[in-house]
Amino acid sequence: MLSRNQIKHIQSLKQKKFREIHRQFLAEGAKLVSEIVESGYIVMGVYSLSGWLKDNESILVSKNIPFFEISEGEMERITALSSPSPVLAIAGIPSDPVVPFTAPDDLLLALDDIRDPGNLGTIIRIADWFGIHTVLCSDTSVDLYNPKVIQASMGSVTRVRVRYCDLPGFLSSVDPSVKIYGTFPEGENIYSMTLDPKGIVLIGSESNGISPEVVSLVTDKIGIPSYSQAIGKNRAESLNASIATAIVCSEFRRRK
Amino acid sequence: MLSRNQIKHIQSLKQKKFREIHRQFLAEGAKLVSEIVESGYIVMGVYSLSGWLKDNESILVSKNIPFFEISEGEMERITALSSPSPVLAIAGIPSDPVVPFTAPDDLLLALDDIRDPGNLGTIIRIADWFGIHTVLCSDTSVDLYNPKVIQASMGSVTRVRVRYCDLPGFLSSVDPSVKIYGTFPEGENIYSMTLDPKGIVLIGSESNGISPEVVSLVTDKIGIPSYSQAIGKNRAESLNASIATAIVCSEFRRRK
Repeated sequence: MLSRNQIKHIQSLKQKKFREIHRQFLAEGAKLVSEIVESGYIVMGVYSLSGWLKDNESILVSKNIPFFEISEGEMERITALSSPSPVLAIAGIPSDPVVPFTAPDDLLLALDDIRDPGNLGTIIRIADWFGIHTVLCSDTSVDLYNPKVIQASMGSVTRVRVRYCDLPGFLSSVDPSVKIYGTFPEGENIYSMTLDPKGIVLIGSESNGISPEVVSLVTDKIGIPSYSQAIGKNRAESLNASIATAIVCSEFRRRK
Repeated sequence: MLSRNQIKHIQSLKQKKFREIHRQFLAEGAKLVSEIVESGYIVMGVYSLSGWLKDNESILVSKNIPFFEISEGEMERITALSSPSPVLAIAGIPSDPVVPFTAPDDLLLALDDIRDPGNLGTIIRIADWFGIHTVLCSDTSVDLYNPKVIQASMGSVTRVRVRYCDLPGFLSSVDPSVKIYGTFPEGENIYSMTLDPKGIVLIGSESNGISPEVVSLVTDKIGIPSYSQAIGKNRAESLNASIATAIVCSEFRRRK
């Protein structure tokens, strides 16, 4: 049975403040916990219903990971999900080296103030699918270790490097030969324009798009053509940030 | 001030059962309510903070729409959003004619058991952007008038026809010359395969993909190539349903 202190500690990790103090985060769900366990993260503890534990106990023992069999009622008290999964893990946040490059040798995603945890997780999953190794986030973006980000990334967080930085500072220090792409309503048609496979793709925030201090650093404005027909004076005005990311990444990779 | 009965009625519309009894749904947010008001929906009432009301009162008066100025505290009691917006409307669910065609003259989306309201709303927004007029949902899909669907569609729900049907029945009745596309891990590379611009694109559910009784009706299997590199034995296995929809729609429209 879980102690009061264990429950309190796990619940505290839903808040960024406590994740930063303890340098720990929560991962939930059978697939995600298995990937975390196998990916070399330091795992402080696994809290599981009996079924998952039976199938995975030997792996946990071989890796010296402490585990606790808990009841469904206990899981409901500690989970950050709306429908609890059979297993929750506490893992250590890896130390975060300074981004060690100024010119990417491949496509790189830079996120300018993405606030929605579902969007950040989904963008990391898209990066993983399209083989993009690094996602740079502005310091104002949502925390990577927010449980909803971890959840939406579906394990991709173990394969994509996500780094926070002063984004305007980073972008202005980049070698001038590197293309910085951003999506704009008035941008050039992405389907027919020239795309450098080694560029930086900048994604703007959900509500405000690309911020003013970064707009001037964009070298090539991309437009995703809309086929929306106006009904009265209304028509589709924009795409969700993660949807735009997917379309842009797909078009870059198609040309490979 | 809102009466107890008004509050109770608005709150009840968060549940499908009461939306079906009253044939009404909730729309929130300045942009969405404006689009609903202008799109010819029957609006039963608008509940607004003073700021939004001041700017929009004349339109409501001209359309004979009842409105109520409410406080922020009252808005917090009636909203279905996690962060309340300045305005909420109750609108009538339009009557739902039987889908009147068997062969589309354009691209059509068919959703096989999409359960997540955010995904359905996002897919409707994608359809709107790419000028796809009709989205067919299996009877098992999430309800269109769920507040989270309406929210995620960002007004696109006023421009895209969304219809529920017995999806296997519909697909088997379609003219055999119509292509039915579905995405599969082993499908043909979408970037190089032939795509008929008048086909039906079938999107599978978040957890189970395309269901067995529908798989056999697919005429052309599409694959979205992954560039993900395995780390250990793990690599990206799939894309979110709305992300896959965006990539497929983008590729169909690019060829137009």
